Amino acid sequence: MIHAKQLRSFTEQIFQAIGCSEADAQLAADVLVSADLRGVDSHGVARLAGYVRLYDHGRLNPTPAISIVHETPSTAVVDGDRGLGLVVGPWAMRVAIEKARVAGTGWVAVRNSNHFGIAGYHALLAAEHDMIGQAMTHAAPLVAPTFSLDKLLGTNPIAVAIPAATEPTFLADFASTAVAYGKLEILQRKGQDIPLGWAQDANGNPTTDANAVKNGGALLPLGSDREHGSHKGYGLGAIVDIFSGVLSGANYGPWVPPFATAGFMQANEGVGSGTGHFFGAMRIDAFRPANDFKQHMDTWIQRFRSAKSIEGQQVLVPGDPERMLEADRLKNGIPVHETVIKTLEELGERFAVKL
Amino acid sequence: MIHAKQLRSFTEQIFQAIGCSEADAQLAADVLVSADLRGVDSHGVARLAGYVRLYDHGRLNPTPAISIVHETPSTAVVDGDRGLGLVVGPWAMRVAIEKARVAGTGWVAVRNSNHFGIAGYHALLAAEHDMIGQAMTHAAPLVAPTFSLDKLLGTNPIAVAIPAATEPTFLADFASTAVAYGKLEILQRKGQDIPLGWAQDANGNPTTDANAVKNGGALLPLGSDREHGSHKGYGLGAIVDIFSGVLSGANYGPWVPPFATAGFMQANEGVGSGTGHFFGAMRIDAFRPANDFKQHMDTWIQRFRSAKSIEGQQVLVPGDPERMLEADRLKNGIPVHETVIKTLEELGERFAVKL
Repeated sequence: MIHAKQLRSFTEQIFQAIGCSEADAQLAADVLVSADLRGVDSHGVARLAGYVRLYDHGRLNPTPAISIVHETPSTAVVDGDRGLGLVVGPWAMRVAIEKARVAGTGWVAVRNSNHFGIAGYHALLAAEHDMIGQAMTHAAPLVAPTFSLDKLLGTNPIAVAIPAATEPTFLADFASTAVAYGKLEILQRKGQDIPLGWAQDANGNPTTDANAVKNGGALLPLGSDREHGSHKGYGLGAIVDIFSGVLSGANYGPWVPPFATAGFMQANEGVGSGTGHFFGAMRIDAFRPANDFKQHMDTWIQRFRSAKSIEGQQVLVPGDPERMLEADRLKNGIPVHETVIKTLEELGERFAVKL
Repeated sequence: MIHAKQLRSFTEQIFQAIGCSEADAQLAADVLVSADLRGVDSHGVARLAGYVRLYDHGRLNPTPAISIVHETPSTAVVDGDRGLGLVVGPWAMRVAIEKARVAGTGWVAVRNSNHFGIAGYHALLAAEHDMIGQAMTHAAPLVAPTFSLDKLLGTNPIAVAIPAATEPTFLADFASTAVAYGKLEILQRKGQDIPLGWAQDANGNPTTDANAVKNGGALLPLGSDREHGSHKGYGLGAIVDIFSGVLSGANYGPWVPPFATAGFMQANEGVGSGTGHFFGAMRIDAFRPANDFKQHMDTWIQRFRSAKSIEGQQVLVPGDPERMLEADRLKNGIPVHETVIKTLEELGERFAVKL
């Protein structure tokens, strides 16, 4: 168990060691550790070594000049200047929030960024201001559209944060696939099979092989197969890709750069600039008085949470499971996996930072 | 086979017979018949008798004074005055489009409306203006959230229309459930089983009974079960419900009124006004030059459509299947089911309109 504070401090020092400013390093560490706190371990400090690899390969600019390249009263396009997505994301979200203050809503498409951590972190930034926050990002292609053998989409998550009055903020934050790739990796390590409906093999057949994606197969869109609506998961992933990539001028589809592998295509091989994201902020009182809205959100949340449930189960509201974990981990510390600890120790040695 | 033109003319006359203006009747008929043309038969003229029933029960105002009740540069709340959703929808979408012209984007939440037909029709209205169109609506509760026995959400569809240059407009238009209820009805009529993953029985168990939803069961969210991501489909349906209902001041969750059954709750039993929708229009050149964007959309579409496919299958782009059907049905007529023909003939007799 490692305390969040320690993990944050270590992460911050590593980001500073590769040249990030103190403020950027603090922010980036906060985004990463918030994933560990919420139980999205795959998007937390487990990725720290990956960001350093991005830096090593010249794909990460630790001192980016993030800028607005185009704007209207309610929109902007932001160029991340190859900065940390963990820093570019909150920067762009602030622009969306400022736009929303004046125009009612703000919508920001980002290009030339890279992995931004958990989408929910960014969406929540707007909720603090009595706004509905939205965040989405595309990612390297691991997912086959319905009937495709080619991997053309990432797990392309969407997060929507909606404030309530006395109830905690509603936070839906989910990939547009049946599962995240991290769930396959866990079963790979255990040498176990995956359920049918998570992945297909190299011939497009349903498979229980946890290594299928590594061996020419693909993750499946939410819905798993055509009969259960995989074309809907594919549609959702496609929308995220187009908003994040085509609208911003980033890459898109199969051209989205991988997170942190060495074989990154050169800019001239792609169809745009780096990785893209899309953010939105809607001021609640641009629609109705914020207090009215938030009281109705309380009613909504209470009604759903008190639904009659299947025996032995509980009906949750989006955001509940992560919030429960966060409360526990803030108190009792974060169980960081030993393989992750090892990568952190290696980073610590390299940059002379103590864990 | 009935020609679209005949079907539109008949439908228009029925709407006029219950008191709609000529322009409203034309528009409403166009929305309904466009569903039949695109193969979404459940949302086409099959519903005409339902709209008349709404009228008979005093839930439909044929001459609504649709109005903007609140607005900012990029947002509005529209009160549909219990008008046809088929008319209120395009009215609200026009507001979104006008907002987008000035502010870059426009977002309109609608209350006090009713069923608006296919979401895709409304989203496409923006695409004609080089804007990305979005339309969503909630509906009467048929869907159980993950682990719930209570039905708290509708099939809550989302449509997103994105224009391209030489390729046809990308149009994703899908319910947030594994399947539409209409698919169960088809198998009910045939006396056949449904696949596991579409519905649960009254105890929350997976079922193959096509009558399960009628007998205390529920439709399942996209993802079907927790292991395959049903909490994501539930999250998506919840977002649609909150945007359509809570943001607009309509009803929400289990309080969304049923489409056309007699037992409609009185206003004071609900938590808001009628049914709600949510629309968005984003001007493409609020982000980047429209021609650049649309050429990249061509590249996107061509890359996805040319993906290597599973043997005997074809990788489609969202909107392709409906467009193919539309081309065929415009040419060869619409195969209207005999039970639907019967309801149309009854309407024809009642209002002295010839089919």
